[in-house]
Amino acid sequence: MDVVRIFRGSLQVDSIDPADRGLAYGDGLFETMRVHRGDIPWLDAHLQRLQRGAQRLAIDLPGEASLRAEIAAMCAGQDSAVFKLMVTRGAGGRGYAPPMHSEPTWILSLHDAPASMPAIDIVWCLTTLADQPALAGIKHCNRLEQVLARREVVAANADEGLMRDVSGNVISATSANLFIHDGDGWCTPKIDRSGVAGICRDWLLRHARVRETVLDRDAVERSSAIFLCNAVRGILPVRRLDAREWPASEDVRDLQRQLAEAHPGLA
Amino acid sequence: MDVVRIFRGSLQVDSIDPADRGLAYGDGLFETMRVHRGDIPWLDAHLQRLQRGAQRLAIDLPGEASLRAEIAAMCAGQDSAVFKLMVTRGAGGRGYAPPMHSEPTWILSLHDAPASMPAIDIVWCLTTLADQPALAGIKHCNRLEQVLARREVVAANADEGLMRDVSGNVISATSANLFIHDGDGWCTPKIDRSGVAGICRDWLLRHARVRETVLDRDAVERSSAIFLCNAVRGILPVRRLDAREWPASEDVRDLQRQLAEAHPGLA
Repeated sequence: MDVVRIFRGSLQVDSIDPADRGLAYGDGLFETMRVHRGDIPWLDAHLQRLQRGAQRLAIDLPGEASLRAEIAAMCAGQDSAVFKLMVTRGAGGRGYAPPMHSEPTWILSLHDAPASMPAIDIVWCLTTLADQPALAGIKHCNRLEQVLARREVVAANADEGLMRDVSGNVISATSANLFIHDGDGWCTPKIDRSGVAGICRDWLLRHARVRETVLDRDAVERSSAIFLCNAVRGILPVRRLDAREWPASEDVRDLQRQLAEAHPGLA
Repeated sequence: MDVVRIFRGSLQVDSIDPADRGLAYGDGLFETMRVHRGDIPWLDAHLQRLQRGAQRLAIDLPGEASLRAEIAAMCAGQDSAVFKLMVTRGAGGRGYAPPMHSEPTWILSLHDAPASMPAIDIVWCLTTLADQPALAGIKHCNRLEQVLARREVVAANADEGLMRDVSGNVISATSANLFIHDGDGWCTPKIDRSGVAGICRDWLLRHARVRETVLDRDAVERSSAIFLCNAVRGILPVRRLDAREWPASEDVRDLQRQLAEAHPGLA
């Protein structure tokens, strides 16, 4: 972590309260954003998702003005970087019960941008994503499933891994959404029972012809083209999924070009 | 939080690293224990469960000797209190991937004991417990389901709430296990797909005749006696569950007496 600032409500503080509910219960939300030429092109979309998550968890977020000013100050002069914003419900309350009024903790941090990769090799993970409609879609801090799945990815020496729900439906990678071309067009899994409503996924749903659907393992392996995407790395063409290989796809390149025009940081 | 000590590995530190994975992903475990006359009677059982959790999450725990010494020092002179032990994977790693070698963060804290209650009033929660065998049984820090359910309990002005899984099977209360008497004997829900293997639950399984089974809402409401239990408050007779009421039960009192003999702090 290169630069980090912590706020309790609107007051900058030196350290995390050991009684913070983020630490105790993962009672918080986060956003990981791409910085390009001192700016976060998708900042509005990230803050909207954060707001949706806060509504779902009933975390009171203060006004955005001072947050935006802080983010702008930290990103100024950064040509290419990753900005992480975490917000927890703050400290206090008796056990799981949230306090009546709590002051959220904000943790803002700046990190190196990841190296870009022309294509990635991925694997099937055995760790499942549990069905939990109350938490699906939002980017909350209960991420042990992803931590366990990511251990599988590291053990397989792969770049990413695909996760399925308990019914065997494919949902997403550990930190990216999945898109496949089924011959007719692009499809991406529904994320109403698990998974995250990715910002790059949202952009693609608005700017390309994509069907949200239910996908099993066979559908993914039969696909004519496949990629992962997230807001930090953009569109990541998949070269290999376990033994299955795909050649470079002109359909994927078209989407990459379209995305690069809208958001040059993700070129 | 009355007294708190933080350790990074075996070194006492002043504050939590903002990059701690406990904060970022709930990547940790905790134990909440009852202190009685300067001692934690069930400490061994708590540390064994912590060890099982650490194996499941692949968190390297250091030797217990210095931890036990620290706990003993903090509990000395405390007649009645609650001791909370939290351990996270520590800081670092790239995104969800755990670092190859990490130094766990320990947070030890001492709190007031809760007021005792002769019987409690509980409600049915709508928030479900997701099926996740990889995390079931252990006391990990991904607790947003319990936080959401506990909000329902607070809104209903109740003492606790019962949670079901997606199939409608009753699993536990938000922070206690459930036991019912079905006329033939005591039953408690299986916790192999969700829920926590409570320390008081384990004690009851070893010291009373209890069947681990699948319970639906009807079975709970038809029961002749019902109680919740956890390691801090012991056996909590249920007086009322929404509209259903139970008279004080001699069967529950027998178990309370048996528990009080073994662990006077829970009398």
